[in-house]
This record gives sequence, structure tokens and C-alpha cells, in this order.
Amino acid sequence: MMDVATLVEQARQGRPRAVARLISLVENAAPELREVMAALAPYTGRAYTVGLTGSPGVGKSTSTSALVSAYRRLGKRVGVLAVDPSSPFSGGALLGDRVRMQDHATDPEVFIRSMATRGHLGGLSWAAPQALRVLDGAGCDVILVETVGVGQSEVEIAAQADTTVVLLAPGMGDGIQAAKAGILEIGDVFVVNKADRDGADATARELNHMLGLGEARDAGDWRPPIVKTVAARGEGVDEVVEALEKHRAWLEEHGELAARRRRRAADEVEAIALAVLRARIGDLHGDRHLATLAERVVGGELDPYRAADELVAGLTRG
Amino acid sequence: MMDVATLVEQARQGRPRAVARLISLVENAAPELREVMAALAPYTGRAYTVGLTGSPGVGKSTSTSALVSAYRRLGKRVGVLAVDPSSPFSGGALLGDRVRMQDHATDPEVFIRSMATRGHLGGLSWAAPQALRVLDGAGCDVILVETVGVGQSEVEIAAQADTTVVLLAPGMGDGIQAAKAGILEIGDVFVVNKADRDGADATARELNHMLGLGEARDAGDWRPPIVKTVAARGEGVDEVVEALEKHRAWLEEHGELAARRRRRAADEVEAIALAVLRARIGDLHGDRHLATLAERVVGGELDPYRAADELVAGLTRG
Repeated sequence: MMDVATLVEQARQGRPRAVARLISLVENAAPELREVMAALAPYTGRAYTVGLTGSPGVGKSTSTSALVSAYRRLGKRVGVLAVDPSSPFSGGALLGDRVRMQDHATDPEVFIRSMATRGHLGGLSWAAPQALRVLDGAGCDVILVETVGVGQSEVEIAAQADTTVVLLAPGMGDGIQAAKAGILEIGDVFVVNKADRDGADATARELNHMLGLGEARDAGDWRPPIVKTVAARGEGVDEVVEALEKHRAWLEEHGELAARRRRRAADEVEAIALAVLRARIGDLHGDRHLATLAERVVGGELDPYRAADELVAGLTRG
Repeated sequence: MMDVATLVEQARQGRPRAVARLISLVENAAPELREVMAALAPYTGRAYTVGLTGSPGVGKSTSTSALVSAYRRLGKRVGVLAVDPSSPFSGGALLGDRVRMQDHATDPEVFIRSMATRGHLGGLSWAAPQALRVLDGAGCDVILVETVGVGQSEVEIAAQADTTVVLLAPGMGDGIQAAKAGILEIGDVFVVNKADRDGADATARELNHMLGLGEARDAGDWRPPIVKTVAARGEGVDEVVEALEKHRAWLEEHGELAARRRRRAADEVEAIALAVLRARIGDLHGDRHLATLAERVVGGELDPYRAADELVAGLTRG
């Protein structure tokens, strides 16, 4: 197998196979994972990441593909990460379904990856941010993170981007669903897709109302724009890119880009730290220790808090 | 306020207000929580806990109420914990809806409690096992844990019981839904409720088929029985109690009761230990440390793994 330094060097040159290989290492939590992350660190922090979320049927995949085209016209290198927290399938599996994405499959300046990410700590939940690091290190200017559903994990993943796009479509009581799922709060840019259908204006109005966009705000506040698109025909997509660039400029101007990235990094570091600690609990010594403590709890000799204290003390001694 | 020792003493005598007060302390993660758990420890490990789960509409609340009646006829002290992982309401809020449960509201030998438990680590996820400890310490012979939905958290909570009952009802493609949610694997006893409706036999047959109950097994294996009930009229409920008692006897005979309880205690201790560690990460010193580390990660100076290592090292030094 190729060594990590060579893979990272090739990924930086934009070689798709090296990028794919690195993401696989990340996704499988391979032993080389730490080495990969260490080698990538100096080259990360350049990509602008955009999260896309919305209910099934709003046209996320089509919109993502249209955005890829738009950014390619601007000469940008683009990464796409399609994240499905509920799917047990990963890697190439989902891509077969993503017909739209096939348009970009042969473009050497576009990297597309599907990923299953379970929401569990110690599972694949931190694989997504780390796959982002690979795409970032591979010189992508823009990374689009598309989540498949609108569950809590999807919303969390989408909200971790520099800019979060919430997609809706006319009808389906979408606005109310969105409000329920808590995705209105995370939207920096709203897109009403399938705007050639009946009810698009009503959806935009309803959204405008729910977002309270009519209300007075501080001059410096970001006012999430609502853009109407027909992504399948590429209509309105340049306006979405324009809105994204405006938001990015606003983020930079207000120090928010750096702040968001620090928060994201802090979350990531904390999740890894907890996984490290959990792994320590699960290691040979700790496992026996935990079993003994559990037995004493069952016997009523020890309460679970004192048992946890002993476990923590054992860890931090080790 | 009454001191913890007095509350525990009164709870052991079966005073409902003391029991309610202790559960509130647990639920609100009050400062006295550790003291409560320590004081209860010697009196726990006696209650037999039964988890009940199933799709909305199968009659979980009615079945729980009927089981309470059946156990009361046997002279048992009964605890009921209704757990709703998705509800932000707790305490008495849900009980208003539980008309059936009102039948037992004035019985001094029945303790009923509703609980919202968010699935997040560090949230209320460990409040449920700890509320169980309170009911256990209060001398309940049997504790019924009823979960409201069939999501992942509900299934996990129900599976933590000594015996898990999975409820179904005729129609609704329930069997398939159950299989999807992974609740077939956790069922020790299956109940087809509303057995006076059309399709009850078909549901039982389908279930029998899905469980592979016709297949050869080791002689010592537990074969989950399928009991038909009309809980609203109390029909078949004594048979459910019989099935539960058989399972309990089987668990004891095979050393499985102790094994399950050890596993449950180990999970509980581990969850508390991780919460303790997470709290340490979040404390004043750790927070600043984490922010500094995150900044270095954003700057590409440090990769998230080495940052996590430093965070862990900082914790375990402290």
C-alpha cells in the first residue's frame, strides 16, 4: 500500500484515487487515520463548506448537482459529501442512485463521495468532519455537504457548515415540517426549489413570515435570503451562488467564519477526546474493572456514581 | 427541605410523596443526586423490571394498566415508569392523558411516574435507570417501564429491563414495522393486543414466522411466547403475567438475570463516567483549553487527534 505522505501529496495534486483512498481510511477508522489527519493539517482551512438540507423530495441532489455546475463555471474545484445518517451503506453504494451526480463523475475537478454516518458517539459521527478535512486538504475551493433526511443528526451535520442552505418545495406543508425539525433556525440561505410549480410564491411568503424577515433587526444582522430555483433546469442557481458568496463575505466581515470554524473544531476535538476515553474504558484493563464495578453496583455495595468515580479515577491514573 | 436519609427512609416505607420527591431529584440532576443514589444502593436489586414497547396505537398504556391490576391481585407493590424520549414534558404532565392509569392513582401500593428522557449523553438518558433505582429502593416488587414510541432510544430503554414485552396489534403491517425497528430481537414475550379484532390470528402467525419459532433450537434456549390479549377488558392479562414469571424463572435458572443486571449496571456506570469526563472538559479550565486547541486546529497547526490527545492528557492530569 502507498504510504500516507504519498497519498496526501497525490490528493493535493487533485488525484481522485488518492482522495478516495484517504476518505476510505477515515471512514473505516483505519490505523493510519491519525497519520492521515496529521499529514493533512497544514493544508486544511481553505475550503468554504456549504451544508444542504431539506425534506425528501425537495430536490437536494438535483440542487447539489446544479450548484456543482455553477461553481465549475467559476473555475472552482468542488467536493461533494452526501451524508446519510440512517443508511448502513457507504462509499460508492449511494452514488449509483445519484444520476444527476453522474454528470460530474468524469470531471477531474469534482470529488463526490457518499457516506453513511451513524449518529452514535464512537461511530461514524466524526467521519463526516474528517472526510471534509480530506476534501479540504485536496484543494477543494467549495465543499457541498448534502444530508439525505431531516432528522436531528442531519440537521446537526448541515449546521456544521460555514453556510447552511435549507431547501423547500411548494406544497407538502413543508414550512411547518421545517419549523418542527428545527431547520429554520439553521438556514443561512433558503431555497424554494421546483419554483415552476403551483404554490411556490405561497411557500416563499409563508417562509418569509415564519422567519420574521419583515421584522426590524440590527443593521449588522444577516437576513437569510429566499431564492427560488428550478434546479433541474439550472434556473436560479447562479442566484443561489450569489447568495452563498454574500453570506460568506458577511461571515468574514463579522469574524463569524473563524468563530464557526473554531466551534466546529472544538466539537470535533471533544468528540474524539470522548471516543478516546470511551475506548480506554473498553480496553482490557478497563473492561475487567468495569465488570467488577458493575457487579458491586448490582450487589448494592456501591452506587453507580461512586462506581463511575472509581472508573474515571482508574482511567486517569492509567 | 427534608434530608435525603429521611426521604429514603420514607420511600422505603412506601410513602408516595417521598418516592415522587426522590425521582424529581434524580430527574433534575439535583446536587443531592449522588447522595440519593448512595443512600438507596443497599436497598436496590430486588425489583423485577419489565419493559413494554410497541408502535403507537397497540394499547401500551392500557396493557400496562391491566398488568398493574394483575400484579396488584397477586399482592405485589408495583412501580410504573412511562418514558417518552421525545417529549419535553416530564413529571405529572403526561399522566393527565393516561386515563387508564388513573384507576391506580389512589392505590398506595402503586407508584406511577412519567418521564421525558432525551437520548443525549449528559441529558436525561441515565435518569431512567436511576428512577428505576428509586422505585426499586422503595420496595416495588415489579416495575413496568413503558416507552411511548418505537425509536432507537425507546428500544434501548425497553431492552434494559429484565424482561422485555413487545406489543403488537392486528393490521397496520405491524410485524414489518417491528422488524424494521429492531424490536423483534429484544422481545422476550410478545403480546398481540386487541385480539378481538380481525387479523389477530394472522398477526400472531406472521410474528411466529418472523421469529422463526418453528425452527429447531437448543433445548435451553428461551422461546418467546406469543400471548393474545384484549387489555381493555383484561382478557389474557393473567397469561401475560404467567409468561413473565416463566421468563423470570428461566432468567434466574440460566444465570441470565444476574448477567443482564451486570450489563445494565456496566452501561449505567459507563454513561455516568463519560458524563463526568465530559463535564470536566466543559469546566472553566478545560473550556479555555479546548478553545485554544480548537484555534490551533483551525490554523492547521494541530490535527484534531493530537488536539484530542492533549485535551485528554489535560483532563487526566487534573
